[in-house]
Amino acid sequence: MTKPNMNYANLKDSYLFFRIAQKVKNYSALHPDKKILRLGIGDVSLPLCKSVITALNGAVEEQAEKSTFHGYMPECGAPFLRQTIADFYRKRGVNIADDEVFVSSGASDELGDILDLFDKENSAFVIEPAYPAYVDANVIAGRKIIHLASSMENGFTPDPDEEKKADIIYICSPNNPTGAVFTKEKLKKWVDFANRNGSVILFDAAYEAFIEEDNIPHSIFEIDGALTCAIEICSLSKTAGFTGTRLGYTVIPKALRRFNMSFNEMWVRNRTTKTNGVSFIIQKGGAAVFTDEGQKEIKENIAYYKENAKILMRVLDECGIEYTGGVNAPYIWLKCPKGLDGWAFFDLLLNEIQVVGTPGEGFGDCGEGFFRFSTFGSREDTLEAADRLKSLLREIL
Amino acid sequence: MTKPNMNYANLKDSYLFFRIAQKVKNYSALHPDKKILRLGIGDVSLPLCKSVITALNGAVEEQAEKSTFHGYMPECGAPFLRQTIADFYRKRGVNIADDEVFVSSGASDELGDILDLFDKENSAFVIEPAYPAYVDANVIAGRKIIHLASSMENGFTPDPDEEKKADIIYICSPNNPTGAVFTKEKLKKWVDFANRNGSVILFDAAYEAFIEEDNIPHSIFEIDGALTCAIEICSLSKTAGFTGTRLGYTVIPKALRRFNMSFNEMWVRNRTTKTNGVSFIIQKGGAAVFTDEGQKEIKENIAYYKENAKILMRVLDECGIEYTGGVNAPYIWLKCPKGLDGWAFFDLLLNEIQVVGTPGEGFGDCGEGFFRFSTFGSREDTLEAADRLKSLLREIL
Repeated sequence: MTKPNMNYANLKDSYLFFRIAQKVKNYSALHPDKKILRLGIGDVSLPLCKSVITALNGAVEEQAEKSTFHGYMPECGAPFLRQTIADFYRKRGVNIADDEVFVSSGASDELGDILDLFDKENSAFVIEPAYPAYVDANVIAGRKIIHLASSMENGFTPDPDEEKKADIIYICSPNNPTGAVFTKEKLKKWVDFANRNGSVILFDAAYEAFIEEDNIPHSIFEIDGALTCAIEICSLSKTAGFTGTRLGYTVIPKALRRFNMSFNEMWVRNRTTKTNGVSFIIQKGGAAVFTDEGQKEIKENIAYYKENAKILMRVLDECGIEYTGGVNAPYIWLKCPKGLDGWAFFDLLLNEIQVVGTPGEGFGDCGEGFFRFSTFGSREDTLEAADRLKSLLREIL
Repeated sequence: MTKPNMNYANLKDSYLFFRIAQKVKNYSALHPDKKILRLGIGDVSLPLCKSVITALNGAVEEQAEKSTFHGYMPECGAPFLRQTIADFYRKRGVNIADDEVFVSSGASDELGDILDLFDKENSAFVIEPAYPAYVDANVIAGRKIIHLASSMENGFTPDPDEEKKADIIYICSPNNPTGAVFTKEKLKKWVDFANRNGSVILFDAAYEAFIEEDNIPHSIFEIDGALTCAIEICSLSKTAGFTGTRLGYTVIPKALRRFNMSFNEMWVRNRTTKTNGVSFIIQKGGAAVFTDEGQKEIKENIAYYKENAKILMRVLDECGIEYTGGVNAPYIWLKCPKGLDGWAFFDLLLNEIQVVGTPGEGFGDCGEGFFRFSTFGSREDTLEAADRLKSLLREIL
């Protein structure tokens, strides 16, 4: 009798965003006249930029003609895109080779797939609050999870603790959900800790394009020693609005080895076995992001979201609400007023002012009493939400 | 110390198509003036059909405007595409629900990912000769592989053997590499065998669009009892030339349960954890394949490849070479002349007539002495290869 992977039974009942969607759906059914403003899930609202559209159109045209048609793509990524991305790193002073870059269908796909590189007995170390898929993907694989709670006191960027060791260490900076960032000095401590213990860091850099302050690394490979202990997973979802278009990239240095095995070589073998590569059309669109024109255009979009962040932060500042993020990140993570837990604050905002955010509890136990706003909405919605929020907070505080 | 997944060390040294590419590259370097005709890897040569191009263009346009822009897609597939595909099944008399269809980035991706549903202790049963990734993906997962050799004597469609049981059974029909097809009666024996033993069949239907004879099932769900023992994995790669555009779909019936777990529900959970769905643009292009116009256009392309098959089969018939496939499948699987093994015949064709095919040894031990031609090349190349092949065979036989 075929035995299913019974680890699925160990997953918590329902996925965070699904529960939120249900609550919003129920509210809408009962109040069809109310306009709901969504600052919940981190989905972008601006369309793809012009350079990307031009490249996508060109690629579709190539697929329409026999003389320019592209069949199977190389499994690890089209050479034109691997080189473009490696050049992007090299221009920023991080020296990696083209074949240390792998093209993916996006960070969420890659964060799941990449676990194939690790032994089932490895433990996974998650700094919480955290993106729920870090835990869930490892539960599916049957791994032991070690949780490290972070807090407002350590700015949600804790230092390593010699008493809490693990094999696979997740670090997300700029962080989802807290918007906190690891400075070079902070990140150096984790790199040294990983090298000392032989751990591997999975560095989730999906939000690096939002960093505006100096001394905040865009890549973990800006840190000495990271080449021997880290894999970096990146995405164009937030950088260039690719949430529904799907493209990401991963850097696996050749210097990353354990037990005489090369993670880079293993990943080549994994990809040649388990995929036939990412769509030619989408890779062409992705490459346009890294041109001068593309960089200029995506920076304008990021500036738009950052203005949204300022609008919301102004309200929180005025009302004396404590928060992190919003500066180097598209998320604002706030302490719920009046000691409310996150789901209670969620219900309050939905019922009273029809604003949807994300309860901190969805990101781990230590997220209790916190709440996340995404700044990816439209300007109009964000302004309207800020107004409603200000009125509500003034009323209840 | 992080332990890598040591199963990678158990993979055979180099991937079949990589070794072929190396041999061709070396030959080209020494003989830059010779024109090489490629009938090796199963990559298509015709461009995407008009309906697909129109749909892709429309989707890119939608991504360029704020009012029509699409962000995150549902993880299991866009509702418009799930419904379109389920309708396609229903029109052919196979009654499945929309939410039994999952959209994927292609069959090769899905064949790797889907193994996440199964316990690590499950055994995997591979009817050889077979697509090498069936074995390799299970080696990476550390599973025991049970090989069942098929042969010209049983038409490469063996019956189940009560002495050889396994948990996960791979069946590919029309078959890669042999081009053989399982009739309804043959497939019924495997469905009954799987139900009797509680096994799960992974039915690879990537080549179903090439079936032209009656009594050959396009879907395993045409067989009574399959809903409780099978998962069907499909692809638009060969059906509609999506090898480099990437789209596939998978049917997981709700009736498929083991140990009180639903494979359909587990896969929903897997997808919501491990992916953010397939590109909106590509899903729009894929949906166009299932329209009346799209079906008409892809059938013209398939007819083109079938004419290639006839051209090659004529030569083999004239020279008295035994083979399978070519009728309901885009592959021709021949017995090498003069008792040559597949790699020797490969070298002979490359060196003497500059025609590239695929040695049978690449598909398992029982493929020794066989050779695969793909019929996906251009008409000109196929005609030229057929001429050269005829001359060579006449000379050596």
